[in-house]
Amino acid sequence: MSQVTIWNEFRHERTNPAAQSLYPQGIHQAIAEGLQPYGLNAKTATLDEAEHGLTEEVLRNTDVLIWWGHMAHDEVRDEIVERVHARVLEGMGLIVLHSGHYSKIFKKLMGTSCALKWREADEKERLWVVNPAHPIAEGIGEYIELEQEEMYGEHFEIPAPDELVFVSWFQGGEVFRSGCTYMRGQGKVFYFRPGHETYPTYHNGDVLRVIANAAKWAAGGRGAAPRYGHVPVPLEHI
Amino acid sequence: MSQVTIWNEFRHERTNPAAQSLYPQGIHQAIAEGLQPYGLNAKTATLDEAEHGLTEEVLRNTDVLIWWGHMAHDEVRDEIVERVHARVLEGMGLIVLHSGHYSKIFKKLMGTSCALKWREADEKERLWVVNPAHPIAEGIGEYIELEQEEMYGEHFEIPAPDELVFVSWFQGGEVFRSGCTYMRGQGKVFYFRPGHETYPTYHNGDVLRVIANAAKWAAGGRGAAPRYGHVPVPLEHI
Amino acid sequence: MSQVTIWNEFRHERTNPAAQSLYPQGIHQAIAEGLQPYGLNAKTATLDEAEHGLTEEVLRNTDVLIWWGHMAHDEVRDEIVERVHARVLEGMGLIVLHSGHYSKIFKKLMGTSCALKWREADEKERLWVVNPAHPIAEGIGEYIELEQEEMYGEHFEIPAPDELVFVSWFQGGEVFRSGCTYMRGQGKVFYFRPGHETYPTYHNGDVLRVIANAAKWAAGGRGAAPRYGHVPVPLEHI
Amino acid sequence: MSQVTIWNEFRHERTNPAAQSLYPQGIHQAIAEGLQPYGLNAKTATLDEAEHGLTEEVLRNTDVLIWWGHMAHDEVRDEIVERVHARVLEGMGLIVLHSGHYSKIFKKLMGTSCALKWREADEKERLWVVNPAHPIAEGIGEYIELEQEEMYGEHFEIPAPDELVFVSWFQGGEVFRSGCTYMRGQGKVFYFRPGHETYPTYHNGDVLRVIANAAKWAAGGRGAAPRYGHVPVPLEHI
Repeated sequence: MSQVTIWNEFRHERTNPAAQSLYPQGIHQAIAEGLQPYGLNAKTATLDEAEHGLTEEVLRNTDVLIWWGHMAHDEVRDEIVERVHARVLEGMGLIVLHSGHYSKIFKKLMGTSCALKWREADEKERLWVVNPAHPIAEGIGEYIELEQEEMYGEHFEIPAPDELVFVSWFQGGEVFRSGCTYMRGQGKVFYFRPGHETYPTYHNGDVLRVIANAAKWAAGGRGAAPRYGHVPVPLEHI
Repeated sequence: MSQVTIWNEFRHERTNPAAQSLYPQGIHQAIAEGLQPYGLNAKTATLDEAEHGLTEEVLRNTDVLIWWGHMAHDEVRDEIVERVHARVLEGMGLIVLHSGHYSKIFKKLMGTSCALKWREADEKERLWVVNPAHPIAEGIGEYIELEQEEMYGEHFEIPAPDELVFVSWFQGGEVFRSGCTYMRGQGKVFYFRPGHETYPTYHNGDVLRVIANAAKWAAGGRGAAPRYGHVPVPLEHI
Repeated sequence: MSQVTIWNEFRHERTNPAAQSLYPQGIHQAIAEGLQPYGLNAKTATLDEAEHGLTEEVLRNTDVLIWWGHMAHDEVRDEIVERVHARVLEGMGLIVLHSGHYSKIFKKLMGTSCALKWREADEKERLWVVNPAHPIAEGIGEYIELEQEEMYGEHFEIPAPDELVFVSWFQGGEVFRSGCTYMRGQGKVFYFRPGHETYPTYHNGDVLRVIANAAKWAAGGRGAAPRYGHVPVPLEHI
Repeated sequence: MSQVTIWNEFRHERTNPAAQSLYPQGIHQAIAEGLQPYGLNAKTATLDEAEHGLTEEVLRNTDVLIWWGHMAHDEVRDEIVERVHARVLEGMGLIVLHSGHYSKIFKKLMGTSCALKWREADEKERLWVVNPAHPIAEGIGEYIELEQEEMYGEHFEIPAPDELVFVSWFQGGEVFRSGCTYMRGQGKVFYFRPGHETYPTYHNGDVLRVIANAAKWAAGGRGAAPRYGHVPVPLEHI
């Protein structure tokens, strides 16, 4: 059974009454409970734990890391970011949620600013499936509808995704590439847009299903670790 | 358990002594045996059966279709090609092997000529993994080496693959994009280069492993069937 | 100077008063005039001309073919479709507009059904630039706004584009991949969504600018014609 | 006329006799001369100049930056790397040559290690065009042949390129993705493999042609600068 570690900054839920009310045990616990029906073994880790809960041992035993952060991106220590980055390249899956678009680890993996437009106006979001062959869309209808969410709008400054799975429509007139896959080294990365802390998004069955699908996809098989560097002896006679 | 149907033209193995000696029951049977360790339920179908063995019922019950053809592409009836095409778009996986690059079904799905360079000169092929994060490369080392194969060389006139998994090196000086994935409609397609009928390629463990990996990948989950056509009532008030 | 041939079915504009009023000389003439400021040499061709105006000679002298069709896709003769297809693969650019998504030539090049959702409800369309590095977006702001257009909605059953340049937002709640590039053989293909015959879309400066940009992009340089087929002599000693 | 700035570390050519003999004025000067026939205005900058020759003003006036570095990647100051990175995202083209794969700027833009295999054994390289529709391949035959080069082999740990233009065959048995395009922000990036300092690669007409083509491609048009951040007022009534 794949081992998922759900990392959460866990600040809003301790200070903002709306977030606290929706996620009294934190967004990480809501997601952990939501993944239970999908045969994934989920643990959690948070910013204020030692090494942010992401010790070498924890990462070594993690198949897929899920990441939610927002107000405290800067408090994530650089050596932990390097550690996570190295583990992604050697095969650990990474699912970056919502405001994690601005996390150090996502920006480092993307190589761009990961900037976007945003607005908090309780508007409707509809995430359309644009790649119905993709395993991350399994069990989802033609779209996911969220009555109220924060708006994220294009342009989203990311590399063109390897695969684009969802595109969002927002009531206020914007669109957004909401479900994006990337392969980096031996690792698989998925960015999934929804999940502002003041909305019940992580209690939505479709959203949880997508996260579970993405975890299974990201935990899937991969090739052998490549060897890099000097190979003085050619395979063929020169 | 996923249902795989292995389709083979099955002509060379009945007329060419070298092919007959290597594949006395046909290439389809060699692949069917090779897939047994991987938890796939494999049946076979051949050109000279009624409806080429690809009745509506057979296709309806097929999760992944594997295709080997060469000298008799033109004998495949157009209505069967349309039937397979429709099933791919509604979610059946398709794995096209070697000379199947020139099959009607592959050309129809690609939209290009699928032309390439070729040479039969018993030369060495080395298939390098260029995407070690991909599940199709699971269990494979840095490359697969085949002592003797037919050469296929670039330019290969296909759409740029959604994902490029293998690139071949040939002794005679050519390269080739040897493992290519495509998503089409709800279906997943994989082209895999090796497998000339006069070499023991389908007795090679790595080659069989790649086909098994590809079958599992292609049989994987997908989104709901989209609705197409006129939708007179908007989702939102206009 | 690049030679552009604008092909138009030219039926709606002779039978539908709204279309006739907007495009008295036909959509092809409106586009031809709109391209004048951009240093492109534009000619036109229509369905009811001999060989649909697309003789071997016309195509040989065409760098980029622009295609608008809708109600008479089936009247386009198959041998002309084959002729256009062959010219695209040997390097002619092709820009497919709006309802041309269902043309024989586009479906043949894509290999999929090219089906989509549609609705005629005078709704607003906003085409967001999702790839601001692309030359097709030159001179365009963050988005193009069209007060009234026909809606096209996802899922659009096309191969994932090589490059996605525009995504449309529609008032009624849908999104659409509206600007899609593909390279096929030596040719470059661009699909651009807007342009229903009963709206003044081809009098919009941004829309014309995108078509001009796409024509320049599609007329751009390319590599040599590949040789295909048997190459009995290897480049290297085997 | 597009302004190209050719940046070179310029160390090997002052210390290694073989490099000195081939490039007495430095690799940057050889490339600058090679670009002359192509209507590009080329200047140069080197590591040991103040600010590495890459002041704010120089970069502001540069349409395309070409980068060659190897033994002194670590001496490139981080603030200059940030400056170049910011300019790429706002639209400056970047062409990274050969050992520049390990430069700070390329690794930062890619988000991966950019590791590879290498060997100095005077072996033949043949770069095959795998995308003959691409403007970077203009004027090039089916392949470029270099009698002697350093080998770079897969796996090359980069993101899957947006477009793959060249794949190299090496005498010793390896392959390599040798011509890779990326769009990042408003900027276009091209990685081109050949160019070890002890071979006359930058005197080869095909190699220079590719660099010129890439410079023109990277200097090409783009969309408007996106606005990022808070957009409190929606475009539509919510």
